[in-house]
Amino acid sequence: MVIVMESAATTEQLDEVLRQVKASGFRPHINDGVERKVVAVLGEVDIDKVELVDQFENLPGVEKVNLISAPYKLSSRQYHPEDLVVRVGKVSIGGTHVVVGAGPCSVESLEQIMEVAKAVQAAGASLLRGGAFKPRSSPHSFQGLGEAGLEMLATAGQATGLPVVTEVMDAQDVPLICRYAQMLQIGARNMQNFTLLRAVGQCGQPVLLKRGPGARIKDLLQAAEYVLCEGNQQVVLCERGIITFEDITRNTTDINAVPVLKELSHLPVILDPSHSTGDWRWVTPIARAAIAAGADGLLVEVHHDPQHARSDGKQSLRPYRFADMMAQTRAVAEAVGRTL
Amino acid sequence: MVIVMESAATTEQLDEVLRQVKASGFRPHINDGVERKVVAVLGEVDIDKVELVDQFENLPGVEKVNLISAPYKLSSRQYHPEDLVVRVGKVSIGGTHVVVGAGPCSVESLEQIMEVAKAVQAAGASLLRGGAFKPRSSPHSFQGLGEAGLEMLATAGQATGLPVVTEVMDAQDVPLICRYAQMLQIGARNMQNFTLLRAVGQCGQPVLLKRGPGARIKDLLQAAEYVLCEGNQQVVLCERGIITFEDITRNTTDINAVPVLKELSHLPVILDPSHSTGDWRWVTPIARAAIAAGADGLLVEVHHDPQHARSDGKQSLRPYRFADMMAQTRAVAEAVGRTL
Amino acid sequence: MVIVMESAATTEQLDEVLRQVKASGFRPHINDGVERKVVAVLGEVDIDKVELVDQFENLPGVEKVNLISAPYKLSSRQYHPEDLVVRVGKVSIGGTHVVVGAGPCSVESLEQIMEVAKAVQAAGASLLRGGAFKPRSSPHSFQGLGEAGLEMLATAGQATGLPVVTEVMDAQDVPLICRYAQMLQIGARNMQNFTLLRAVGQCGQPVLLKRGPGARIKDLLQAAEYVLCEGNQQVVLCERGIITFEDITRNTTDINAVPVLKELSHLPVILDPSHSTGDWRWVTPIARAAIAAGADGLLVEVHHDPQHARSDGKQSLRPYRFADMMAQTRAVAEAVGRTL
Amino acid sequence: MVIVMESAATTEQLDEVLRQVKASGFRPHINDGVERKVVAVLGEVDIDKVELVDQFENLPGVEKVNLISAPYKLSSRQYHPEDLVVRVGKVSIGGTHVVVGAGPCSVESLEQIMEVAKAVQAAGASLLRGGAFKPRSSPHSFQGLGEAGLEMLATAGQATGLPVVTEVMDAQDVPLICRYAQMLQIGARNMQNFTLLRAVGQCGQPVLLKRGPGARIKDLLQAAEYVLCEGNQQVVLCERGIITFEDITRNTTDINAVPVLKELSHLPVILDPSHSTGDWRWVTPIARAAIAAGADGLLVEVHHDPQHARSDGKQSLRPYRFADMMAQTRAVAEAVGRTL
Repeated sequence: MVIVMESAATTEQLDEVLRQVKASGFRPHINDGVERKVVAVLGEVDIDKVELVDQFENLPGVEKVNLISAPYKLSSRQYHPEDLVVRVGKVSIGGTHVVVGAGPCSVESLEQIMEVAKAVQAAGASLLRGGAFKPRSSPHSFQGLGEAGLEMLATAGQATGLPVVTEVMDAQDVPLICRYAQMLQIGARNMQNFTLLRAVGQCGQPVLLKRGPGARIKDLLQAAEYVLCEGNQQVVLCERGIITFEDITRNTTDINAVPVLKELSHLPVILDPSHSTGDWRWVTPIARAAIAAGADGLLVEVHHDPQHARSDGKQSLRPYRFADMMAQTRAVAEAVGRTL
Repeated sequence: MVIVMESAATTEQLDEVLRQVKASGFRPHINDGVERKVVAVLGEVDIDKVELVDQFENLPGVEKVNLISAPYKLSSRQYHPEDLVVRVGKVSIGGTHVVVGAGPCSVESLEQIMEVAKAVQAAGASLLRGGAFKPRSSPHSFQGLGEAGLEMLATAGQATGLPVVTEVMDAQDVPLICRYAQMLQIGARNMQNFTLLRAVGQCGQPVLLKRGPGARIKDLLQAAEYVLCEGNQQVVLCERGIITFEDITRNTTDINAVPVLKELSHLPVILDPSHSTGDWRWVTPIARAAIAAGADGLLVEVHHDPQHARSDGKQSLRPYRFADMMAQTRAVAEAVGRTL
Repeated sequence: MVIVMESAATTEQLDEVLRQVKASGFRPHINDGVERKVVAVLGEVDIDKVELVDQFENLPGVEKVNLISAPYKLSSRQYHPEDLVVRVGKVSIGGTHVVVGAGPCSVESLEQIMEVAKAVQAAGASLLRGGAFKPRSSPHSFQGLGEAGLEMLATAGQATGLPVVTEVMDAQDVPLICRYAQMLQIGARNMQNFTLLRAVGQCGQPVLLKRGPGARIKDLLQAAEYVLCEGNQQVVLCERGIITFEDITRNTTDINAVPVLKELSHLPVILDPSHSTGDWRWVTPIARAAIAAGADGLLVEVHHDPQHARSDGKQSLRPYRFADMMAQTRAVAEAVGRTL
Repeated sequence: MVIVMESAATTEQLDEVLRQVKASGFRPHINDGVERKVVAVLGEVDIDKVELVDQFENLPGVEKVNLISAPYKLSSRQYHPEDLVVRVGKVSIGGTHVVVGAGPCSVESLEQIMEVAKAVQAAGASLLRGGAFKPRSSPHSFQGLGEAGLEMLATAGQATGLPVVTEVMDAQDVPLICRYAQMLQIGARNMQNFTLLRAVGQCGQPVLLKRGPGARIKDLLQAAEYVLCEGNQQVVLCERGIITFEDITRNTTDINAVPVLKELSHLPVILDPSHSTGDWRWVTPIARAAIAAGADGLLVEVHHDPQHARSDGKQSLRPYRFADMMAQTRAVAEAVGRTL
């Protein structure tokens, strides 16, 4: 249930609404919208009942009360009608400018991350991505350089002026990652690691939440809800392909998810064509498609020597191909009224 | 196995190759390429064996012999390296110009089909689509007007100058449909109705082959192979969404299939955003995405009164929204170096 | 909507109900139940409306009128509360006795089909299966022996006394198949070939309808509805695995479908563990599971020389392994109160 | 790569093998098999190369060296040919006796868990299940009673003599859960929470590892590998249904996974028919099917008042229905040569 205040509602009226919400045993969350404030009313029991509407609709300063049938509330557009713009350092995600995060799957050495960082920055990337803690299906695969990798990533970020996004795999590591990175990534396999979601919800840093390969769109929005409920509104959603019967590609890019998520939620949506296809040959056309469908950005794997990459070499673009991808995608962005 | 002839090979040399292919118990298919001829060698037993390469590679006029590991041969780019352009009346599918087929799910009356046909023609559509024989999950649903519907469709096609594409559901109906339509559509549910595929393969009319909701990309290419084997090369492939666990949308648009099919095959590829999303609200962004990904065209459901449509009303665009879709998609087409 | 007659309703009362159903523009179908007659009321428009209940509920002899929310009506248990028993020659499917149909994927020669037929008969099979018209993904694969294969199959059936079930791929072939086989199989790829469904619905012979790999349970029941609507009630449903992301097995056996179908419908349900697993090593445990879950029978591929089979060798049991499967499955059948 | 020692190999010979494995930069894991010892050789780089076979095959006491092509090594039958029996208190999982764990989805009160525990114990269950830390898709749903719930669960376990299995959601909670429970459950959503897998791998307590709804069989075996690599061999695998397009059921029971897992791995396999169907009406037939397919046990949700359960009421059996399920499943277990 959301309580939409009148645009002229006073602070006292708002306070009274909040007081009554709490007195009824619920938790209020306020969205300070540009035009009018919206109060989400949350609680364990289902509060989206017609009976409760009357209780709040007659309070002074209340314009209307809307029930939210979806199981996600704070990640819903009904609570936050305007597009959200998430800020990562000087970069804004969710505005007119399309944002591209790029970098290697894994940080492998300072030389490697510096070389790739400079290349992607030169080609127009706004964020530097790279993994130091790697979730790998097999315990026998390379697991990342850990904190040493974070240091290299931070160095490359500072050298290029690119804010850094990297994955956090465990709630205990959140403070460590926050020291080195400007944005925390929740990987696809951890999309429903609720302890981790709460932890990043409490840290205040912007969060990049990847959709799980077996997760429905509504599951992704409920996962985002875990972060939002802890008071952290800076969440960007990332479509990275779902698991289906099609086996030529690594995953199936759910391109439908882009307009669906933009309609259901105010959170920015980006797409990762590297994982959603699994092959560098198809990254550029899918990057173009993502922007054409309305995505707010891209997350792309780039490596200067893919054949010797310690992970995901097959789906990594070489720097010159990444530059070409940027040029092609920029043309599409302009065709849909955006910049890149 | 394909035998690539030298560009200067003589007719006699080609004839000798064909003779030897037949003498070995195989069937040759010739692709008259612009630069050089390619002979596909077909047979039931697996003929993609190294031993057979020698037999043909030393013949005069043969440049090289390539094995084809894929189970589809005639629909493979190895057999036909250049993009194929399929001609439907005066319309060319697979060239620089992006082709849009549009119209109602079902032909319901002459008034309806005329109204929609004029609207889509005015908005820039190149083909008129409409169903007279409707495959419906339930026998209790509207099954189409049959031949009466075909007549209305043909009338509307002639009035607007748009070639007509309509579904054929049974091998016996092929001659009937050919009398009224310029292009025959094989629906998703019939993608592996092999009797029907052979029948349209023999009719000579261009074919629009829709991917089955539970079919892999390689199954689609093998289905096309059935048509090509009968001597009909005029096949256009259509991605229309696959069946997955995601349930907000009717199907999941497999946007990856666009660049994958364009790489594996020379056949033109179009996308049907109406079925692949199942909701008119998401048709336009997915139409833009399809063109950005490299599709050669679109198939879109349009109805002047969707709420009273006898089928698929929810996913049909009203004419003014279709015109808007065309404008938006045109901008994307130009951004990727094409026209619409 | 179904109209349940009183057990003491007279023929005149029933006739009056039928007259009024027709007068209202609907089509009545009568189920001559053991205890009471049930009339299904069918029509294109949605007739499951409360308003229509009153119209029929007050007629003399009518006990009650039930709405059917499902899109399938004649295949629903609401229309036919008792289990249906389908008779194929002297074999009954759907009763206490579990029925096993077995034989090779393709009929390859008279010797082959005779050898396999005798082996499966000796091991306790009740039906002989074998393909003469084969739907193959690739046009370059073996397509079956056609009518010659049907003759061999019929000969083997007569020699062993086993009724024969074989696939029909096209509506035109129905009369031909009916001359040689006692039961007509609709293959998975043709589950929504509605022309074919209508044709077998008109032929009167019992039908084995396989679920499509990308079809939902409700799609299967609607496909059955096409056959039932034509007046042919002798339909057996067959689960044969669905297409999912799991790639170790050829398909995923939807074992849930067995109790779900038995609850929603009165039609007998059998399971094909050969296709649902794709590997002979897993056929026996899944055959046991099917019977434990409540299936009324099995369809199993058996070949005396799987390594040289022209199709599906990998998933075919050798005769001695089939005999072992029968023994193991028999024990499970008895544990759930049935015989085999 | 596994090194199979001769049955008469001496301790010195084994030590020399281990020394050389380490000297080559790999990690050895020893399986003390009944007949002969097997040494798994692990390392990040792919060591399953023919070149390495020679190096070890000529050492004294070595019978043979086998390459393991699968990405899982310690969870493979090649490493551990005999069935593993996991012991949880006095209960053995993986032997002839089929083991049933039962209890409510969530512990709600001491009265509730005591009542259910007594009922399932009386009906023949061997383990008590119940959730105190609940992973819920929505942050607004009941999240479990936490440590208070663990206490109630332990009390009920002691009162009935049933060992307790409960879910651990975070690495930090492992010591806490170990104080109250005899077996730790990794939930489906955490199957690839690698930090958590390592933590339970280090705790020494037996582990119940549930398959993720979007995870392939080989992903499950690699997840188990994470636990085994830490030195904890006491792992039981649990199939609980996968996510597919079928929407009548909550999940699709992948019954194929039972014989496939039993063939590929030595780890015990159980099945959770409550989650794999999502509806109590289908739990009993699927429980029967699981045992018929070769599962070593079941995990079943039971609640004395499902309509008021705080979670999963729809799929919970009432105690008297659970007793009936046990009786039916027992008959099937005996039919396949086991007890229950």
